[in-house]
Amino acid sequence: MSNDNILTFHGHVGTSVELREGAAVPWVLFRVASTPRQYDQATRTWRDLETTWMSVKAWRVLAQNAAESLTIGDPVVVIGKLRTESWTSKDGEPRESTVLEATLIAHDLGRGVTTFRRVDRQPAVVTSSDGTVEALAELEGQQVQTPAA
Amino acid sequence: MSNDNILTFHGHVGTSVELREGAAVPWVLFRVASTPRQYDQATRTWRDLETTWMSVKAWRVLAQNAAESLTIGDPVVVIGKLRTESWTSKDGEPRESTVLEATLIAHDLGRGVTTFRRVDRQPAVVTSSDGTVEALAELEGQQVQTPAA
Amino acid sequence: MSNDNILTFHGHVGTSVELREGAAVPWVLFRVASTPRQYDQATRTWRDLETTWMSVKAWRVLAQNAAESLTIGDPVVVIGKLRTESWTSKDGEPRESTVLEATLIAHDLGRGVTTFRRVDRQPAVVTSSDGTVEALAELEGQQVQTPAA
Amino acid sequence: MSNDNILTFHGHVGTSVELREGAAVPWVLFRVASTPRQYDQATRTWRDLETTWMSVKAWRVLAQNAAESLTIGDPVVVIGKLRTESWTSKDGEPRESTVLEATLIAHDLGRGVTTFRRVDRQPAVVTSSDGTVEALAELEGQQVQTPAA
Repeated sequence: MSNDNILTFHGHVGTSVELREGAAVPWVLFRVASTPRQYDQATRTWRDLETTWMSVKAWRVLAQNAAESLTIGDPVVVIGKLRTESWTSKDGEPRESTVLEATLIAHDLGRGVTTFRRVDRQPAVVTSSDGTVEALAELEGQQVQTPAA
Repeated sequence: MSNDNILTFHGHVGTSVELREGAAVPWVLFRVASTPRQYDQATRTWRDLETTWMSVKAWRVLAQNAAESLTIGDPVVVIGKLRTESWTSKDGEPRESTVLEATLIAHDLGRGVTTFRRVDRQPAVVTSSDGTVEALAELEGQQVQTPAA
Repeated sequence: MSNDNILTFHGHVGTSVELREGAAVPWVLFRVASTPRQYDQATRTWRDLETTWMSVKAWRVLAQNAAESLTIGDPVVVIGKLRTESWTSKDGEPRESTVLEATLIAHDLGRGVTTFRRVDRQPAVVTSSDGTVEALAELEGQQVQTPAA
Repeated sequence: MSNDNILTFHGHVGTSVELREGAAVPWVLFRVASTPRQYDQATRTWRDLETTWMSVKAWRVLAQNAAESLTIGDPVVVIGKLRTESWTSKDGEPRESTVLEATLIAHDLGRGVTTFRRVDRQPAVVTSSDGTVEALAELEGQQVQTPAA
């Protein structure tokens, strides 16, 4: 089935983007905060709507380049598949999280300028299984940084 | 800012789609269940991944036509803006829900055939304010129907 | 590479949608006309922008259901990959056409109501090679019908 | 109507991205080449499919940042509205071009790393009318550079 649920998500990086290597392939899991703005015809001003937080996951070269390029507060666009993942909290409670499995991550040129550099990556060393559920638990406990507006 | 978070969501209608008229414009709020399938190279079979449930909201003519066209179990595609809405549960607890504000709702021709008919709609009568938070609370309490696979 | 060029195209069916069976799988090739509207703040009226025509291609069950469901003038949405195809005109001239390879085709509930019916399809009989280039040549010669506004 | 035809286009910058200032707002018009790859199960190798060229247009801050950030050969993603524009060639012949009116332009982190820097932009000075048709004519005459694979 090629009918995946594809989301294009615009926001600011809200947690640090660190490469996780204890898995078959290198990967990252981080959060992005999106605060849409709406134009109010009555007052002729823009006002912020509610912030949506999204967990973003990426693998391999995309993960390596994202970890090297992204800093908390950076404006980014992420395109990917919206998925639900089940995991268990430290208290043993079942949890469900929505995760955006990225096929594209990029700095938004609507918010600033970027300098690009090609990188030759070595093929990733295969080690063990995925650790997504541990990382989701960790993100939950973590004090999420407020991105720059 | 035209950089809305746009989601294309494929699934089956999971709750009844009833027109709600006690607001400025007619609207609907219903749930769609999406169960992606993944091909397992090892066993050469398809297997179901976890189901993602999405609350879908629409207004005006789109809401009127959706209410007249959709039945529980129908395969649909929805395109819209992904938004977060805050509301208060019956117990007075604060809640956050993710809502897909639809710009397109349609039956999926990958799953069956459709017959189309144009409809002339009268302009909606304006009455009072939106009742989204009441409807989100109602959907939560409601026993969600399992859509046909 | 999963980074396909994905287009969501809204318009009206502009040529008849007939199943073509002389190939490995049943398929369709038809044209859709899209005329966006823009709100003119000065005159407070909507005005039509230029029409974009798109060649849409689909295969297998999606093609079979589209052929059975769609009539010239129907409002549709098509999601797919934007591709360039080279072919040769009757005069022997090289041509390039942009084709939207559909993963989704559907009637737009923003324009009317639909009735949905599931259909059991027999697996398609494999016969010979694809005939896309012949069909593109045929579409070019054909007097394209103007879709209902 | 919010149902615009939205395209997500991945490719390499194929012409230089220069800011054009003789209009109401600063803008850019440049070409992007997209060459999708397909995995051939039989030979177990990737092969290039036909290249699709797209004219990309942007305005204001996005145009200013794109002109400052992009170099021929850079891997980019562009999201925008697909539009048809009519213009007249130097020989007086009527022409139609497909143009992608960008809402997002970004370097692709799947292909390398980026460094991001915020920029304070002065409001653009309004001068005269748009010069898109002249620029489309110019792009046609221009020897298009082959982007790095």
